[in-house]
Amino acid sequence: MGSLLSTVESPQDLRGFSDEQLESLAVEMREVLCNLVTTRTAHFASNLGVVELCLALHTSFDFRRDRLIWDTGHQIYPHKLITGRYHDFDTIRTRGGLMGYPNPHESEYDLFMTGHAGCSVSTALGLKAADDLRQEEDRHAVAVIGDGAFPSGIVYEALNNASGLKKKLLVILNDNQMSICPRVGGLAQYLDHLRVNSFYTSLKGEVTKILNKVPVLGDPMERLLAQAKESIKAGLHGGMLFESLGFRYIGPIDGHNISLLRKYLALVKDVEGPVLLHVVTEKGHGFKPAEEDPVGFHTPAPFTCEQEGIVSFKKSSSRAFTDVASTAIYQQMQQREDVTVLTAAMCQGNKLEKVRADFPKRFFDTGICESHAVAFAAGMAKSGLRPIVDIYSTFLQRSYDQIFQEVALQNLPVTFLLDRAGLTGPDGPTHHGAFDIGYMRVFPNMVVMAPGDAEDVAPMLDFALCQNSPVSIRYPKTKAEAISRVVSPVELGRAEVLSWGQDGMLVACGSLLAAAVEAAERLSEEGLDVGVVNARFVKPLDEETILRAVERFPFVVTLEEGALMGGFGAGVLEAANNAGLPTQHIRRLGIPDRFIEHGDRAELLSELGLDATGITRLCRELAGKRELVKSGERRRVS
Amino acid sequence: MGSLLSTVESPQDLRGFSDEQLESLAVEMREVLCNLVTTRTAHFASNLGVVELCLALHTSFDFRRDRLIWDTGHQIYPHKLITGRYHDFDTIRTRGGLMGYPNPHESEYDLFMTGHAGCSVSTALGLKAADDLRQEEDRHAVAVIGDGAFPSGIVYEALNNASGLKKKLLVILNDNQMSICPRVGGLAQYLDHLRVNSFYTSLKGEVTKILNKVPVLGDPMERLLAQAKESIKAGLHGGMLFESLGFRYIGPIDGHNISLLRKYLALVKDVEGPVLLHVVTEKGHGFKPAEEDPVGFHTPAPFTCEQEGIVSFKKSSSRAFTDVASTAIYQQMQQREDVTVLTAAMCQGNKLEKVRADFPKRFFDTGICESHAVAFAAGMAKSGLRPIVDIYSTFLQRSYDQIFQEVALQNLPVTFLLDRAGLTGPDGPTHHGAFDIGYMRVFPNMVVMAPGDAEDVAPMLDFALCQNSPVSIRYPKTKAEAISRVVSPVELGRAEVLSWGQDGMLVACGSLLAAAVEAAERLSEEGLDVGVVNARFVKPLDEETILRAVERFPFVVTLEEGALMGGFGAGVLEAANNAGLPTQHIRRLGIPDRFIEHGDRAELLSELGLDATGITRLCRELAGKRELVKSGERRRVS
Repeated sequence: MGSLLSTVESPQDLRGFSDEQLESLAVEMREVLCNLVTTRTAHFASNLGVVELCLALHTSFDFRRDRLIWDTGHQIYPHKLITGRYHDFDTIRTRGGLMGYPNPHESEYDLFMTGHAGCSVSTALGLKAADDLRQEEDRHAVAVIGDGAFPSGIVYEALNNASGLKKKLLVILNDNQMSICPRVGGLAQYLDHLRVNSFYTSLKGEVTKILNKVPVLGDPMERLLAQAKESIKAGLHGGMLFESLGFRYIGPIDGHNISLLRKYLALVKDVEGPVLLHVVTEKGHGFKPAEEDPVGFHTPAPFTCEQEGIVSFKKSSSRAFTDVASTAIYQQMQQREDVTVLTAAMCQGNKLEKVRADFPKRFFDTGICESHAVAFAAGMAKSGLRPIVDIYSTFLQRSYDQIFQEVALQNLPVTFLLDRAGLTGPDGPTHHGAFDIGYMRVFPNMVVMAPGDAEDVAPMLDFALCQNSPVSIRYPKTKAEAISRVVSPVELGRAEVLSWGQDGMLVACGSLLAAAVEAAERLSEEGLDVGVVNARFVKPLDEETILRAVERFPFVVTLEEGALMGGFGAGVLEAANNAGLPTQHIRRLGIPDRFIEHGDRAELLSELGLDATGITRLCRELAGKRELVKSGERRRVS
Repeated sequence: MGSLLSTVESPQDLRGFSDEQLESLAVEMREVLCNLVTTRTAHFASNLGVVELCLALHTSFDFRRDRLIWDTGHQIYPHKLITGRYHDFDTIRTRGGLMGYPNPHESEYDLFMTGHAGCSVSTALGLKAADDLRQEEDRHAVAVIGDGAFPSGIVYEALNNASGLKKKLLVILNDNQMSICPRVGGLAQYLDHLRVNSFYTSLKGEVTKILNKVPVLGDPMERLLAQAKESIKAGLHGGMLFESLGFRYIGPIDGHNISLLRKYLALVKDVEGPVLLHVVTEKGHGFKPAEEDPVGFHTPAPFTCEQEGIVSFKKSSSRAFTDVASTAIYQQMQQREDVTVLTAAMCQGNKLEKVRADFPKRFFDTGICESHAVAFAAGMAKSGLRPIVDIYSTFLQRSYDQIFQEVALQNLPVTFLLDRAGLTGPDGPTHHGAFDIGYMRVFPNMVVMAPGDAEDVAPMLDFALCQNSPVSIRYPKTKAEAISRVVSPVELGRAEVLSWGQDGMLVACGSLLAAAVEAAERLSEEGLDVGVVNARFVKPLDEETILRAVERFPFVVTLEEGALMGGFGAGVLEAANNAGLPTQHIRRLGIPDRFIEHGDRAELLSELGLDATGITRLCRELAGKRELVKSGERRRVS
């Protein structure tokens, strides 16, 4: 396998290829993608969809000089295969291997590490504006953006700016009719309309004008136009949205036809000013099960592929926090008429399909529009409903300002569920939810919680929906263990003490509780009596319990799966300081001040000392220090 | 004066008014606005522009039940005048008086406190969706949004969602051709085009269809249509942008013609689905100097108004941090070809007019599009330039996620200038820059600085532009004092020690340095020797200097004009904790965990103990406590 592909060390090697050879290459590339997903969870359907587009782009431009940004970089695999990374491709998404997103450290062909959607037009415009200023006007700038990312507000901001600046910028709208979930909103309907009117063949009337400016290529295209009068007529109406915004609109064209793609890319290359090329692709193209179920094959679990179309997924038996949360949401929807659920194209990721199916009127998917989703929820809360905003921790960063102004400042009872809070594993730094404790707790009125285990989730949601203030609940992307104990009811600002130790105390914020319990058990076997507190509340902090621990115990270790700066442990330091208590014996475990790479979540946690072993080791050390201090002259501050 | 206006206790009182009476009322309202701005700085031109629109809205809807959101609430004054707040109107923007923005605590007619632009469509849609779910479908929802706010990404997200949901929502685009600064971008050109084509008279062809569905009013409107054939023809093309997004577009119409406005509002009231009504107003309408210079009269300093058009501003003689920064920017633009400046409709606020005038190619105003501005800057930095992003602290919150992904994660040398960092005074909680220390310092790679006085600004900018990482520099909205000293050069992670004391140490982060120096002087007169450190760097923190102070001095007080949670002082606690040092003698002064109301900045600071008096008092107290401790048995921890 890979007879052609293995010869491609860089896009330069594609120069002599005929369209037929490129098509054969496309087949080979799809085989590589199919083989990969039998071994691990990886982005799949979107990558199958852009194979031809990727080949057409790299044979039409020279991206050593020209600028190419793949928006929402999980569609980067074909690009990686032909930019010198084919031989390492089987390391993708593993610790120390290739990233599943563009990575400037891997290749000069990757300009931006992009995991959050919608910024490609802005960064491409920035590159273009700067290249022009540096008098390198010949460098082309291309942004490839999916129709799922296209409704993001920043795209509109960038289009508006690009057309105001009249920059020569090529935006390729990769229209596969999907976000991760089926796309939604007025824009989706508009794109459907464009496609129905003039699918695959059309050019707008105005394009003739452009073509006339392109002497060599003008003629054959005009012949093509003559053969497609009907669609030209329809096309007269087409693209007005983009034309109104000052972009020249061309399309839609078939994104799986390499020869056609190259023809159009050659054309638009010489158009001055901003151009939007509308390319229609099929998510999952070339692999039937994925074509038929592009949602299921967005990031499928590893599967074996026996014959055409027969697929069996390797199943995971454990329940994840996401499952527990979605069950709790479902129960609330059943019990309370005033509860609504909002997400931003994370219906599948957050396992909300059943909620959507059974409560369609109270379920709102805004598409990849987190800022709007939060302000929209604020409006609902103001009207008396109890909206739940269910968005990944890292993507909710897009709503920082709306959480501030529309929710916290108005003190509205919006409940935020922050899925994927903490280290998400193979997706890497764009997807880790490292900062939410810090960004949530600073806002007045906000209650910030983290369930210690599976048992905490439903009561916390129930509690949140009874508060008259905004509440956020964070939990990680991992299986939800149930820690055996008599679960105490969730009360505002109350931690749950699992055990009081004699020698020290572990105060776990959320997901690291299980590791804390395990560490305490191991330490107990070694003769160290270390207690465990399930903090539950980041804010209001249970000062009574936690500061008592600070006062009494030889050492206190705070644990959080989040950035240490300004995080939970920092909050404990602040509280102790406010209370005039000493803090020297407090140690904080969490994510240090650097971006954490991709890899298996357990591996990453272990490396940061955030597993039972790491916690045990630290406690031993702290207990040892204490012995040392005891045996010396000085007394430990307490 | 006020013969009509003084009788209006609520919009219900307007019910019997004829159009002529409403016009007289408009004249009275303008007089009140003009009188106000002779006494204090207040939003002016935008309020003059919406007087008629406000009257037309309140006489066409019943906003006790219907929902009205004024986007960017500084256009709220006329609304306040007729919703029971006329008699308190002279207290506006003063401590304890009316807010200069909508305030739900003041009136049931104010639904959201809105100071950041663009969220009105989202919140109005949320209200509408929730009202429908609660089976109160008769309640209308109206968002009034300026053309300045309209390019904000969230507006597009909300339009997209509204049209997908097909909700009955009225969006009034108040088109005055201005953001705070002249508006920019493709959308601006598009609106200009709409206005030129069919200014004041037109209705789109499609409107006839709507009109036919409105039996009573249909006929006179059709007569109007007959009189305006030409503009109808032009209008056929008009509004395609909004129609493409699924909105019914109507307009443009004259926003100063109350009778016409009411006619159209009656019409659109019965249209199903989302409608965009394009209303053209003139910023500053009715006051000639403001009509001619709407930028200068956006928030003018108090002025006296002798006769028509003769205006003299009361001048402030002191130089603000903003002036110092803009001078430093100008110098960098002169010296370095690779420096660009970006702002988001804050050209006037940040005093960048001269930069714009003299370096038009390297100056970029994105309009109210902070998210894009930051990603755009990231693209420029990637290409090798040194962009400066000059945006208010509170508005930069809109870019949290772009600062994360596009700048910090890529480690690109973008320099952020955060103006208005800290308490901004009369604008109140939407405008205070309280959170930036916390949101900036958590990002790996980010260098975070704050100038202690005017002298620090230019060297810090120079330093920032020589770094190979992102840098942020924050400073407040106040006059920039120069503290007399031999200014030491700015070095990465180095604080500046102004004096070492014997009895304690003040570590000031940025703007409170002058107060710290003054406090130290006062204390010195009382025999207390308290040193002062100009921290300069929030990150990397000068641990050598600051931790030495923590080790040596009986007390250390950190000072910051920002939220205490996760702020500068918290960073000092974290550093001390990491170093194993005690922290009981550290006290942190800053903004507590609540939203700070509007008022004079000095008053607000004083109330929070953040002035020389408050600092002096705290130091006395700490010194006193020490004496007490000394005189008792226990020894202070140190």
